[in-house]
Amino acid sequence: MSQYGERIARFRDWMEAEDLGAMLISSEANLRWLTNYSGEGLLVIDAEGLLICTDSRYAAQAVEETQEVEVTADGAHLQQAMDRLNECGAARVGFERAHLSYASYEKLLGTVEDSKLVPCADEIRHMRMVKDSDEIDRIRRAAGIADDAFRHWREALTPGVVEREAALELHRLMVLAGADRPSFDIIVASGPNGAKPHARPGSREICAGEPVVVDWGAAVDGYCSDCTRTIILGEPHRRSRELWQTVREAQITALEGLSAGMECREVDALARDLLRDRGWESEFGHGLGHGVGLQVHEAPAVSQKSEDELAPGMIITIEPGVYIDGWGGVRLEELVLVTEEGASALTNAPYDL
Amino acid sequence: MSQYGERIARFRDWMEAEDLGAMLISSEANLRWLTNYSGEGLLVIDAEGLLICTDSRYAAQAVEETQEVEVTADGAHLQQAMDRLNECGAARVGFERAHLSYASYEKLLGTVEDSKLVPCADEIRHMRMVKDSDEIDRIRRAAGIADDAFRHWREALTPGVVEREAALELHRLMVLAGADRPSFDIIVASGPNGAKPHARPGSREICAGEPVVVDWGAAVDGYCSDCTRTIILGEPHRRSRELWQTVREAQITALEGLSAGMECREVDALARDLLRDRGWESEFGHGLGHGVGLQVHEAPAVSQKSEDELAPGMIITIEPGVYIDGWGGVRLEELVLVTEEGASALTNAPYDL
Repeated sequence: MSQYGERIARFRDWMEAEDLGAMLISSEANLRWLTNYSGEGLLVIDAEGLLICTDSRYAAQAVEETQEVEVTADGAHLQQAMDRLNECGAARVGFERAHLSYASYEKLLGTVEDSKLVPCADEIRHMRMVKDSDEIDRIRRAAGIADDAFRHWREALTPGVVEREAALELHRLMVLAGADRPSFDIIVASGPNGAKPHARPGSREICAGEPVVVDWGAAVDGYCSDCTRTIILGEPHRRSRELWQTVREAQITALEGLSAGMECREVDALARDLLRDRGWESEFGHGLGHGVGLQVHEAPAVSQKSEDELAPGMIITIEPGVYIDGWGGVRLEELVLVTEEGASALTNAPYDL
Repeated sequence: MSQYGERIARFRDWMEAEDLGAMLISSEANLRWLTNYSGEGLLVIDAEGLLICTDSRYAAQAVEETQEVEVTADGAHLQQAMDRLNECGAARVGFERAHLSYASYEKLLGTVEDSKLVPCADEIRHMRMVKDSDEIDRIRRAAGIADDAFRHWREALTPGVVEREAALELHRLMVLAGADRPSFDIIVASGPNGAKPHARPGSREICAGEPVVVDWGAAVDGYCSDCTRTIILGEPHRRSRELWQTVREAQITALEGLSAGMECREVDALARDLLRDRGWESEFGHGLGHGVGLQVHEAPAVSQKSEDELAPGMIITIEPGVYIDGWGGVRLEELVLVTEEGASALTNAPYDL
């Protein structure tokens, strides 16, 4: 059985336990995880089989990318799905509550009987947390490409380069190294711009001595990598060096302290407690990390409020940061595979300042 | 009053007509159109004023980008919005039915009384259809950058280049020419790959004589351009030339026939009827065009089922195409401003084969 066949079998087990005769999948990433289809559309799973509802733009692609899946491309996606849901006669029809708009829900209500509709939690998000060996390979490959590109990029970077052009060059090097695309808009945030964790590269010239937050990743075969380094061109100013070392220490504490079986919020606390002790608690405003896979941000959340628990095979980021308005920021992010023993790094971009 | 102030005043008029004391805006593009804020979050509009609910990653940006808007970044976006909706005491609270997930709706239901909640049509989508002069300028600027980049790119393109690298180079040229980024993933689909309207650039080498569909656009200051040419390196094969001319004729027929006041579906029919007469109806599987603005695909739809009507100030694409499985495709796309007199082109990339 293919990996997709296995995933569908597992999902069908869950449907059976939930007494669902049919299920509507509207999350793009979940659709891809179950079938390998990477275009737009909806998926219906019922006793008969699997049906992808799309349109002429994606019909050929849907047939090419999948196995043992029917494809229909004749009308609005949701209408096609509703037709099938009606035909199949299931007594209980599940839908993804987090991935269906209220408007689509209203349309469903107009077709499928109210009493049959079951809003479901995102079970596939849960299944996707632990990666199989093929997924780990793809993410490792994406991370390797991102590392190689970064090394070449870092060597050639000089003060005076504009953020936007620096980001573009890193993008170019990743694609030339084999990435399908960057896994998100690359961040190159120099000096004060680094105070925004999600800064967009602009027209500022990078100066010597100041911290530059570089957050980048590659997408390969649908899977993402995600990595951050804070670098300094020339001699670091004293404050930059001290902050960098503090953030690095927080990161290492979390990386060395984590292991399968731990609550994600305990992992977050490992880094957060250290930053609190050093007086930087309120400058670390985001969670410590997140899962990475088909999406660059996916489960588990590694944050103060997370209810997830680490398990072997999860791939997560560990990315403490300190952000100071008007001055700048320092963030360091590692992508790791969670193992029984601890964390195994998937990236190896250099950590020199 | 700023353009944003005017837009909010118009939207408040609509809220008053609908008897809505408060409104929750969850569409990213609508939030940006109303306030200029370009990050993640939710917007609450009530009698008191405007409140953007975001988190620490975007708090500084939200303050910088907006005027006369309060910003809160203390907790989950939706929770912050619900707190405000409860405090404000509005008797009727609207939400965007197309832009709120069923899960968020359930959370709203748990906080705001059921009887107060009003699912709303996307009125802002409607308002956004007709562009003001600032928006037209931005889109014109984006289109000009995309044109310039294309011209340089086209001159340098030779057979044997891999699709993915060709797309990357066009991307690079657009950013160097001043684009913030491409407005969507650039399509370079050579030979048989052109049969998929939304093909992704791959590892195929572009050959002489075959059609290559190139679909690209720039994003500048939040606004998009969108353009397609089908080019041929070297001497076109006879079938390519004939098909290209047929598609061009369909496009010109629509461009010359359209004017403010027409139903969008009539415009679609102008091109579709010509392709039908030539025997290519079933090879033209998508709509003739769409609005372009903050989003690369927005209202109005220019398709067979559209219920929109053209008005002066709309910016739309006219993009007939013919797609033949196993052989390839031809698509030609123009971006135009709808005027009282007809259509005024915003792109001027060359149309030579």
